[in-house]
Order: sequence, then C-alpha cells, then structure tokens
Amino acid sequence: MNLSPETPPATTVSLADIKRAARRIATHVHRTNVATCQTLNRMVGHQLYFKCENLQRAGAFKFRGAVHAVSQLSPAQLARGVVTHSSGNHAQALALAAKTFGTSAHIVMPATASPVKRAAVEDYGGVVVECPPTLAAREETALAIQRETGAELVPPYDDPRIIAGQGTAAWEFLQQVPQLEIVIAPVGGGGLLSGTAIAASGIASGIRVLGAEPAGADDAWRSLASGHWVPQTDPRTIADGLLTSLGKLTWPIIQTHVSEILTVSETEIVNAMKLFWERTKLLIEPSSAVAVAAAMSESIRNLPRSMHIGVIISGGNVDLRRLPW
Amino acid sequence: MNLSPETPPATTVSLADIKRAARRIATHVHRTNVATCQTLNRMVGHQLYFKCENLQRAGAFKFRGAVHAVSQLSPAQLARGVVTHSSGNHAQALALAAKTFGTSAHIVMPATASPVKRAAVEDYGGVVVECPPTLAAREETALAIQRETGAELVPPYDDPRIIAGQGTAAWEFLQQVPQLEIVIAPVGGGGLLSGTAIAASGIASGIRVLGAEPAGADDAWRSLASGHWVPQTDPRTIADGLLTSLGKLTWPIIQTHVSEILTVSETEIVNAMKLFWERTKLLIEPSSAVAVAAAMSESIRNLPRSMHIGVIISGGNVDLRRLPW
Repeated sequence: MNLSPETPPATTVSLADIKRAARRIATHVHRTNVATCQTLNRMVGHQLYFKCENLQRAGAFKFRGAVHAVSQLSPAQLARGVVTHSSGNHAQALALAAKTFGTSAHIVMPATASPVKRAAVEDYGGVVVECPPTLAAREETALAIQRETGAELVPPYDDPRIIAGQGTAAWEFLQQVPQLEIVIAPVGGGGLLSGTAIAASGIASGIRVLGAEPAGADDAWRSLASGHWVPQTDPRTIADGLLTSLGKLTWPIIQTHVSEILTVSETEIVNAMKLFWERTKLLIEPSSAVAVAAAMSESIRNLPRSMHIGVIISGGNVDLRRLPW
Repeated sequence: MNLSPETPPATTVSLADIKRAARRIATHVHRTNVATCQTLNRMVGHQLYFKCENLQRAGAFKFRGAVHAVSQLSPAQLARGVVTHSSGNHAQALALAAKTFGTSAHIVMPATASPVKRAAVEDYGGVVVECPPTLAAREETALAIQRETGAELVPPYDDPRIIAGQGTAAWEFLQQVPQLEIVIAPVGGGGLLSGTAIAASGIASGIRVLGAEPAGADDAWRSLASGHWVPQTDPRTIADGLLTSLGKLTWPIIQTHVSEILTVSETEIVNAMKLFWERTKLLIEPSSAVAVAAAMSESIRNLPRSMHIGVIISGGNVDLRRLPW
C-alpha cells in the first residue's frame, strides 16, 4: 500500500453509483422526454437532442438528487426531517422529495427571495425559514435548525448522493439516444455536470462532455483553464442557477472528466432562451438557455462534421412576470 | 326513396374520412404527446389529458388540415400552387404544407399583420401578399391570385378536407387515451371542433364533446342555444384564433354532435394560460388557454364524479414580446 497524503481523493461517485441511484429513484422521477427541433438543427448543422428536465417533477433535474438523498435516510433520520438553504430549484426539489418520503423539510431562504419561489416551496409542504440575505446567515440558520431538530442537511450539489442522483439524467439520456457523441450540461456548483461526466465517460469513453457557463460567472472555465479551483466572485448573469462556485467534490470530477467549458454572453443566453421557447414551445429557464446557447455557439457550429449532440435542459422554473426580453 | 328538398344536408365528413386522412398524413405530421399535470388534476378533481398540438409542425393543429388538403391535389394542381387568406396559424400551416409537397403557397395577409407572423410564413417559403385589413379586400386579393395563377384555394376551416384533417388530432388522442369520457376543444370557425366531434362520436357514442369559447366571441354558444346559426359580430378576446363565425359545413356538424359550449372570461383565459405555462412548462397560445380554462371552469369542477377529460391544446404560437400578464 502506498497511500501518501498527496494522493488525490478518489472520485467519490462511480457509474455503478449512478446506476444504483437510477434504480432507487425510478418510481419517483419522471423519465423525461427527449425533444428535437429541425429549425435548430438546421441553424447549427448538427443533430441536437434536448433532455427535458424542465418537465421533471418540481420543474428541474434537482429533484433527482434530492429524492435520491432522501431515499437513503434511515427511518430514524426520516423521523427528524431534512434541512437545506437555497432560494432556487434545490429548495423546491427537497421540499417535494421530503413530501414523497413523508418527512418534513425546513428550507432556509433569504428574506429577499421572490414570493413565487417561496410559494412553490410551501406548495410542496416545505417549511420556509427566513434569514438575512448573506451566505453566513443562511449557513448559521440551517445549522441552528439542524441542532434543534436533528434534521439531516441535504446540500444542493457537493454531496455524493446528490451527484449520483443528478447523474441519472445523463444515464437515462444515453439510453434514450445511444448515438450521442457530445453532451453539454450547464455548470453552477457542478452537481449536474459532474454527474453527467461520470455517467457519460463511464458508458463510453469516446463521448465528450462539455460544460456551459455564463461568461459573467465563469469560475469553472477559469478553474479548468488554470488547473486549480478558482472561486466565483461577483457573478453577473441572469442565469440565477449558475451563480455558485464549484464544490470540493464536483471540481475534481469535472477536472478529470470534462473536456471543455464553453462560455456564452448574456445576449446569447437571452436569444437562445427566446428562440427555444418560440421553436420548441417548451419553457426553459435562463440556466438551461446557457446550455442551448453553448450548443449554438461558434465552437459547436464550426465542428468539422455533423454530430449527435445532447443538451441537458436543466429546468423550466421561470417567473413569467419578469422575462428578460 | 324519400329525399325531400327539406332533408338536411348529410354530414360531409365521416369517421372513415378521418381515418383515411390520418393514414394519408401520417408521415408528414407529428404524433404529438399527451401531457398530464398532477397539480391541475388536483385543482379540478378530474384526470386531465392534454393533446399537445402546440408541438405539432408549424406550432398548431392547423397543419393537419392544411397538409391533408394539399396531399389531395393532383400533379396538375400542385404545379399551380395553393392560396389562402389568413393572418393566423392556417397561414403558416399552409405555407409548410405547400413546401412539404414541393408546391408554392400565396398567403394573403392584411398589411396590419404582425411582422412575427409574416416572418413565420416566409420562413416556411410562403409568398406573402399584402392587402388592406378588411375581409372583402382579403377575399378579393385571394380571388385575384387564384384567377391569375390557377392556384387552389385552401380555406382555413369550412372545407371537408380541412375538417377531416383536423379530426385526426382527436382520432389519435382517443387511441392514446382510450378511457376519455369528455373531450374539450376550442371553437372559432369550427374546423377543429367539428372534426373532433365526428371522430369522438364515431369512435364511442358515449363520449361527450364540448366546445370552449371566449365569452367575448360566443357565436357558437349563441348558435347552439338558439338552434340556428348566429354570426360572430364585434368579437372581443385575446384568443385571436377564435374570432371567426362558424362555417356552413362546421355549424351543422357541431349542432348534431357537440353537447355543449362552455364560455370563459378573458380573466379566466389569461389565468389558465399562465398557470399552464408555469405548471406544465409548455407554451400554449390564448386560443388553447380557452380550452384549459373551460376544463377548469365550475361546470367541469362540479361534475358529480372524477372523470377522464381530454383537452385539445390547439397551438403554441405566441408573440413572446406581447404577453397578456
């Protein structure tokens, strides 16, 4: 045995974990459709396939990870409930996952969170706990609830149960469209992208996995370019699901298995979102439009031959009163 | 034989015509998905099924009738092309149908038509011919093109080929969800509703077919209530696909086979449209929201037991820069 302290930590999630997760959550999640669009294909010169996680329960892929995490809790843990801090799709996903397993979810949200998102969490039976709008306040509040109730903390991405759960989307996608040569997923904290990368590279080493990131929140691009983890500071993008830094678990997975990060401008994001709505009649949120925009970017259009390209549509939770056009 | 002149004209379209149409257009149309939504089911206390013709080619059921009409033209007729006047979904549908069969389509549109709709027609290769924004000018211009080019006039609804084509949506729907007890379709000129009524009543006499109409354009409701054809005058509704009067062919079919017309207010239409977008992540146009609103109306909610109710989502062509909320 030669385990020096310098040995990098092993990838904590394997394809086998994702397959197990897929079986475990099969009765709880939707096997979402794959959409295609001839107009978009013509525009990019490739065959594009869209894995519609906007049609997933609670409106985003996040339900996969959340319900996978909750499904692994013991009866004693389930009796004490779950807790997280999030103002995004993870909040709704965990509330619904908790409801699915008959347990309670405390969701810590900043007092500034939109009433729409708050209502969505409460709709699924989640208990919203307000806190000041700082990361420190959110973490402290969640910790206090944990101490008080004994609830299990279910983080949004940096957790092997979550990564394995998110990876089930790509696992399903590659069963539905085995000819995929490239898979593009948006990257924020990296739960979806790392799960996708493990699934795709595990199934066929020839599949290239690309991340899609707003140029205004490009920590993953910087991290991959520099070869070391770069935190996200001062993100500026309408893709509100992609504001966070990569995690301690997700970063090494992405470094190992992701070929490239494609960055897109805010204009490209808004244009892709509007075009996608108009052409496919499917609502996608800005974070998903980042991946669509990447699939339509010059780097992809300029590939030397027509390819089968999969795009993971991460979610469709949009405030319809505040559209970016 | 006892065919007095008073004998009402025979229904000009039969279930057999619809089945033939379905076979004829099968390779050209999408077999659209049926969507369901647990939240909406809970809200109404029924099992709702949505036939997603917003995912049909050219974004609406109209393509079924248009491609069916064009598919029946002789080579000589195809050489001369087709013509219609429409500023709505029939315009795009006929342009794409013509393209599908390698012929030309002249589409007469009022000069006031939105640039978005005009561009969509041109995108499908249609030749847009502008005219003043009156019905008389539209008809004259179409007639002039017909005389000049020998093109075949393909009307938007009052034509047996069109009615049979539109009926294929319900025919497919009842194959996909055989347990349907009620089918609701929006009614404007009545092409979709009459085709739906013939298909549904032909398949099982016990299925109730209901029309859905804006209270601000309720000629079908008035016609059915009074027992004689009442023209639409001064319609006021955001459901721009439902402004027209019933046709000479569609009215007697609707009178014979449709149980009831449900009318809904503008507020109900807008609320249903927004709720449907939010919950299903599927874009529907106001005319489709009329049918959703009808399915959520008191008359349906108050039915004595939970039923299997199908709603035909007619289309998803929306100007995203001008949303009604």
